[in-house]
Amino acid sequence: MAATTELISALLLFLLICSSDISTGEKTRRPEPCKRLVLYFHDILYNGKNAQNATSAIVASPAWGDKTTLAAPNRFGDVVVFDDPVTLDNNFRSAPVGRAQGVLLGAINFAGADDIMKNTRDLSVVGGTGDFFMTRGLATLTTDAFEDDRYFRLRVDVKLYECY
Amino acid sequence: MAATTELISALLLFLLICSSDISTGEKTRRPEPCKRLVLYFHDILYNGKNAQNATSAIVASPAWGDKTTLAAPNRFGDVVVFDDPVTLDNNFRSAPVGRAQGVLLGAINFAGADDIMKNTRDLSVVGGTGDFFMTRGLATLTTDAFEDDRYFRLRVDVKLYECY
Amino acid sequence: MAATTELISALLLFLLICSSDISTGEKTRRPEPCKRLVLYFHDILYNGKNAQNATSAIVASPAWGDKTTLAAPNRFGDVVVFDDPVTLDNNFRSAPVGRAQGVLLGAINFAGADDIMKNTRDLSVVGGTGDFFMTRGLATLTTDAFEDDRYFRLRVDVKLYECY
Repeated sequence: MAATTELISALLLFLLICSSDISTGEKTRRPEPCKRLVLYFHDILYNGKNAQNATSAIVASPAWGDKTTLAAPNRFGDVVVFDDPVTLDNNFRSAPVGRAQGVLLGAINFAGADDIMKNTRDLSVVGGTGDFFMTRGLATLTTDAFEDDRYFRLRVDVKLYECY
Repeated sequence: MAATTELISALLLFLLICSSDISTGEKTRRPEPCKRLVLYFHDILYNGKNAQNATSAIVASPAWGDKTTLAAPNRFGDVVVFDDPVTLDNNFRSAPVGRAQGVLLGAINFAGADDIMKNTRDLSVVGGTGDFFMTRGLATLTTDAFEDDRYFRLRVDVKLYECY
Repeated sequence: MAATTELISALLLFLLICSSDISTGEKTRRPEPCKRLVLYFHDILYNGKNAQNATSAIVASPAWGDKTTLAAPNRFGDVVVFDDPVTLDNNFRSAPVGRAQGVLLGAINFAGADDIMKNTRDLSVVGGTGDFFMTRGLATLTTDAFEDDRYFRLRVDVKLYECY
């Protein structure tokens, strides 16, 4: 299990550094992935009172924001650092197989009503270490749960197209 | 037009995450790009009074800075989140074909007088989604206009050398 | 020397953007690097009193942190922008061959006692410009010195596996 944890950590670090975009529906023909895995990230945002179980914290915000509430509108300008447990199913109480560590950036200001629960977003996987040495591919993110800006869960479907 | 917008967004997200460096003049022989496009980004920085038309905001700054003025000297330590309209020519009033969303980082402290209007900077394009699935290449940036730290325009010449 | 400086800068910008992970000991068989170089980064953190020789500054921190002291525990949530001199040996007074410019992110919250002086960490090199056009590979980081949260020195062993 320790080995699995290490390897998954190694991968996840590289998933989360880029802002997301709306998935364009895979219209182009694509090769088959050489590796695929589905993971769930569980995030509890620090709100000033939950230091004992928070897994992320706002560390920067625009002039009109603060560090215990997400900025309005659209969370534009918020920078959130996270260290989230990762599980293989969507149960928060399942044994974690790794941790997702990185930063989220609110960079959408002028979007219309983005339905966070419906849309998927594709991110590029641009590198990796350990068992994921030099891999490249895509991660498709779905917001699997979103409770009141306090807890959210992401389903992350990792498809690697270059493996060593 | 909507499709173009989506695709260009998909690409731009990956251009802007890295700090820039001074272009070394393309002295090495290079392959021909498999795809090329020239884009203009238009940025208006939030200054405390222009919330209605600002497209970017300072969200973090060093101890000697603040969130409505760029830090001196050299903007070192400023973190700026942006959601800029992108056009195909250098006219601010042209119809946008997409949005550039990401973060700019002031990380040059000890440079001499960098002539921002003369120098170009190369950035790596390390991935993409949609029509830009798995692409890699370079983006050469030129500051096309820079007005008093309030408005600036970037010319972005994207040259992709790996296409799927 | 100027040319060397430029080229090394070009490379370093891309090393430092990702959080690090614990090296998994290179157990997989790997190809030989097509390029390799060992560099030392020297970092002096701004503490409110050392503006004249600091090379980095805290620009964002969680609600419980500030901009002149690293956050406890584990520096979680600190965002540090740096512009560090780079040398070819571990002597702070050697002539710099370039500068490392980027951002460090404290994203480990729940780790046990991480022995920063013993562990190495692998980072992905995901791109480059100039002589490092389109390169990919790994950088293995060792903390070579760590003095009281004020000065630290990193040994960076860059191994490139894709060269153009």
